[in-house]
Amino acid sequence: MEEYILLIDTEDAKGLVYNISKVLFANNLNIERNAEYVDPETNKFFMRTRISGNISKDILLKELKEVLPQGSRIRLNKKAKKDVVILVTKESHVLGDLLIRYIDGELNANIKAVIGNHEHLRDLVEKFNIPFTCISAEGMEREAHEDLMIEEINKYEPEVIVLAKYMRILTPKFVQQYPQKVLNIHHSFLPAFIGANPYKQAHERGVKIIGATAHYVTDDLDEGPIISQDVVAVDHTFSWQDMRKAGRNVEKIVLSNAFQLLLEDRVFVYGNKTVIL
Amino acid sequence: MEEYILLIDTEDAKGLVYNISKVLFANNLNIERNAEYVDPETNKFFMRTRISGNISKDILLKELKEVLPQGSRIRLNKKAKKDVVILVTKESHVLGDLLIRYIDGELNANIKAVIGNHEHLRDLVEKFNIPFTCISAEGMEREAHEDLMIEEINKYEPEVIVLAKYMRILTPKFVQQYPQKVLNIHHSFLPAFIGANPYKQAHERGVKIIGATAHYVTDDLDEGPIISQDVVAVDHTFSWQDMRKAGRNVEKIVLSNAFQLLLEDRVFVYGNKTVIL
Amino acid sequence: MEEYILLIDTEDAKGLVYNISKVLFANNLNIERNAEYVDPETNKFFMRTRISGNISKDILLKELKEVLPQGSRIRLNKKAKKDVVILVTKESHVLGDLLIRYIDGELNANIKAVIGNHEHLRDLVEKFNIPFTCISAEGMEREAHEDLMIEEINKYEPEVIVLAKYMRILTPKFVQQYPQKVLNIHHSFLPAFIGANPYKQAHERGVKIIGATAHYVTDDLDEGPIISQDVVAVDHTFSWQDMRKAGRNVEKIVLSNAFQLLLEDRVFVYGNKTVIL
Amino acid sequence: MEEYILLIDTEDAKGLVYNISKVLFANNLNIERNAEYVDPETNKFFMRTRISGNISKDILLKELKEVLPQGSRIRLNKKAKKDVVILVTKESHVLGDLLIRYIDGELNANIKAVIGNHEHLRDLVEKFNIPFTCISAEGMEREAHEDLMIEEINKYEPEVIVLAKYMRILTPKFVQQYPQKVLNIHHSFLPAFIGANPYKQAHERGVKIIGATAHYVTDDLDEGPIISQDVVAVDHTFSWQDMRKAGRNVEKIVLSNAFQLLLEDRVFVYGNKTVIL
Repeated sequence: MEEYILLIDTEDAKGLVYNISKVLFANNLNIERNAEYVDPETNKFFMRTRISGNISKDILLKELKEVLPQGSRIRLNKKAKKDVVILVTKESHVLGDLLIRYIDGELNANIKAVIGNHEHLRDLVEKFNIPFTCISAEGMEREAHEDLMIEEINKYEPEVIVLAKYMRILTPKFVQQYPQKVLNIHHSFLPAFIGANPYKQAHERGVKIIGATAHYVTDDLDEGPIISQDVVAVDHTFSWQDMRKAGRNVEKIVLSNAFQLLLEDRVFVYGNKTVIL
Repeated sequence: MEEYILLIDTEDAKGLVYNISKVLFANNLNIERNAEYVDPETNKFFMRTRISGNISKDILLKELKEVLPQGSRIRLNKKAKKDVVILVTKESHVLGDLLIRYIDGELNANIKAVIGNHEHLRDLVEKFNIPFTCISAEGMEREAHEDLMIEEINKYEPEVIVLAKYMRILTPKFVQQYPQKVLNIHHSFLPAFIGANPYKQAHERGVKIIGATAHYVTDDLDEGPIISQDVVAVDHTFSWQDMRKAGRNVEKIVLSNAFQLLLEDRVFVYGNKTVIL
Repeated sequence: MEEYILLIDTEDAKGLVYNISKVLFANNLNIERNAEYVDPETNKFFMRTRISGNISKDILLKELKEVLPQGSRIRLNKKAKKDVVILVTKESHVLGDLLIRYIDGELNANIKAVIGNHEHLRDLVEKFNIPFTCISAEGMEREAHEDLMIEEINKYEPEVIVLAKYMRILTPKFVQQYPQKVLNIHHSFLPAFIGANPYKQAHERGVKIIGATAHYVTDDLDEGPIISQDVVAVDHTFSWQDMRKAGRNVEKIVLSNAFQLLLEDRVFVYGNKTVIL
Repeated sequence: MEEYILLIDTEDAKGLVYNISKVLFANNLNIERNAEYVDPETNKFFMRTRISGNISKDILLKELKEVLPQGSRIRLNKKAKKDVVILVTKESHVLGDLLIRYIDGELNANIKAVIGNHEHLRDLVEKFNIPFTCISAEGMEREAHEDLMIEEINKYEPEVIVLAKYMRILTPKFVQQYPQKVLNIHHSFLPAFIGANPYKQAHERGVKIIGATAHYVTDDLDEGPIISQDVVAVDHTFSWQDMRKAGRNVEKIVLSNAFQLLLEDRVFVYGNKTVIL
């Protein structure tokens, strides 16, 4: 008995649940968990179904296609570990948290490699017997550096790319290589404090709460679909460095929550938003 | 076009979603929102579906019954205001919060009456043009007092009874009159600090967080199925009275959240737990 | 025995605590609670001291002035109810919450009057035997309307003015009349979603958390010193109206928390920030 | 210029702040930050002062003793890294989090050693070049095992002992060796779910929030003074294993928050409570 995650997004229409469940029933499959959502504004239908049974993938996809509207997106993912590549720069807290979760068995993932634009984190990564590659950007054009990054990333054929405090801006060319595959952690409660050093901005504004935001990377910096956010209280005694320190806890938690959602195939993107089922 | 909430709870079986959606489809109904849950421990299936269309209630119930396992519980509630009775004693904060939400149009309810065992809140309730009845318990046996309460409550045929800081213990006889209808707010983060004056207990224990719990009332005091909980941070500067004051904010929010869930038919009870769809 | 709150803000200097406490000791006063803060960036010293004893206000102020640096701000407020005026427009949830807390004895305040630019809330306010005045802005220039508002407000000589969803922009002229006296609730987690309809903006951006911010009103709209903030989780099922509804709970709590801090003389303003002791 | 933390706890008396600040002023010391608290119930006075200047420790302590009531507890700690020993069993998440923070420079501590009663975590600890000792309890009496533990711990003369999921019950003999030095993380929101497998208990009770508690270890299991608590929302879809997984995030955060407070000398114990300044 195998388990699969069936993901459907399409225009809403009468009878969708009936038609889909009919196919599953006819194929003698169990529905282990099911969630749907229809967005009332756009009339988009989203469904995530965990199914078990003897699954013939091609037949099932074909039969589902027949009963669904044209242009429907249908994905059928085996419930299995996803291959992941992590990009980093110098900061260790998010990467370290992921590594500890990884050896703890918390992540349904294979971390194939960590790639940095500095050497700083090689030692940490190699402690955990994971390959580390440094591709320095020094003295290089942005695009030339990205080409090397892409070449290195593609060696591992990752299903998810995690930017664990990778501090370089990505070009549209890079982003378009990996649609809905690149997860970033932004160190503010977006859309507050877009851009550089959000903790300094937050300190200057005198806020009483700071946060972090995990989102898909799109062409617009810090504007991608938000997956997860969380916050922590601060007060007047916090310097911006104290805020950064407090913020790190939130960054870790938010990034790992969003990462778990991706690993479990629970995130749909529509427009600039996410549906999480 | 009418809207109904269809609530089904039953033993899990293959094809349930298919069979239910087939009936809905055959009756030409739209599924506006749908959520299911199967509890893996008990194998119980729960489904809440918001449907619209021209509904013939009796036919639909009959057809659903035919495709569902014996012993299934099927409810089909028109999406409409529920009749509510509120019981109180002396404290005004939870009642006041409900009244303000009520005139604000936030609650999908008709508050038919407020019944107190003291006169304290008559003035507040009558400001809002809602009938207030005082049934004093002074000098009465518990059961005799409850009989009067039941008689008064039943005049209004409420679908939900809210204990908004009603400070008397209810007998099993009372509770059994209104199965899954009585909502209580307990002024602690259950199961911590069961019983009298939880804020004093919390203060004595030196906790750093206090909370409140909204639950269905069952025979066991403070042991009913939990619907909603929330917390607030406290510190060493808080006297138990300060904790009570801070706790009141949480009590209001938690009670009103749970009340909304009941009004929207989103709560299933199984054993001593709730499923919220 | 009387209780006073002593508030000092000044340039930091060696011996400040010693000099201040010497004066208090020499006057035979008890320190019931004391908190200080020195801002390391600006070298500003803040101190809030709750003192009890037989206090000769003039003598104490004079002696403190002698030992403190020139330009120190020294306030000595009797621990007593503050006179408050509330400004409103049409929305009742924040006002209602304040009124319920008021009759509950939660607020150390005298609500002298509620002034609206619409008639909508007269009925609610008068239920609580508080004077309500409507000063319509219809067909008036902004300044002319404000002049009438100021005239009406000044009748009550308020120590605090609460904007409980008063939906008009204030001119600098108005603001400068009441420095550090006007408390506003903004329906977003500032500085995110400045300006009109933050809930619509939040919905469009697809955020997973929304919030509210209580701040002093200054010349720059939504840019005044922040006193209190809080948030609540939302998800893809929330329409912007659902977000607004969820946000209302947060608005209530945040506004009333900030209001309590003002009533207890716990907020210092420096630059565009607050110190809360 | 050196920095010290001065910690005083004593019976409250008139003039305490004056007398203490007089001594500091006479010694030409700067007060960098100061916080006091008087517990109104027990009349205990607590003060934490961060001072800088040329400090002659013995003279300062002597002079403070002269102006303070008999029986006052006065501590003067150089602002420096504290020596720490960590005890573990098999679970890696809390230990791993501490190690990542440690190499990140977040902890003002020297982790001298990790001691386990199993070999499981040796590999992880040694990756970080920290000594690991395994003292198996197999086949030993509790007291004999503890004697070996104490002997090993004492080699490192730790100022703080962190139980990072050390799953053995400690005898009073052990506890009394290290008064107010042993920090534990309990995997529930105490006092709810005292004892074994709190996540199973929480799941069975159907709670909607779970938590974790960091506390000093005293003779009574799970009854020591609470330093820090936090919570996370759960729902009906969480198995007890899911709750445990969610709880691990909270355990990490709570333990590291409490640990930071200890490292910064911010925690006073009185009776069974803590004051955090």
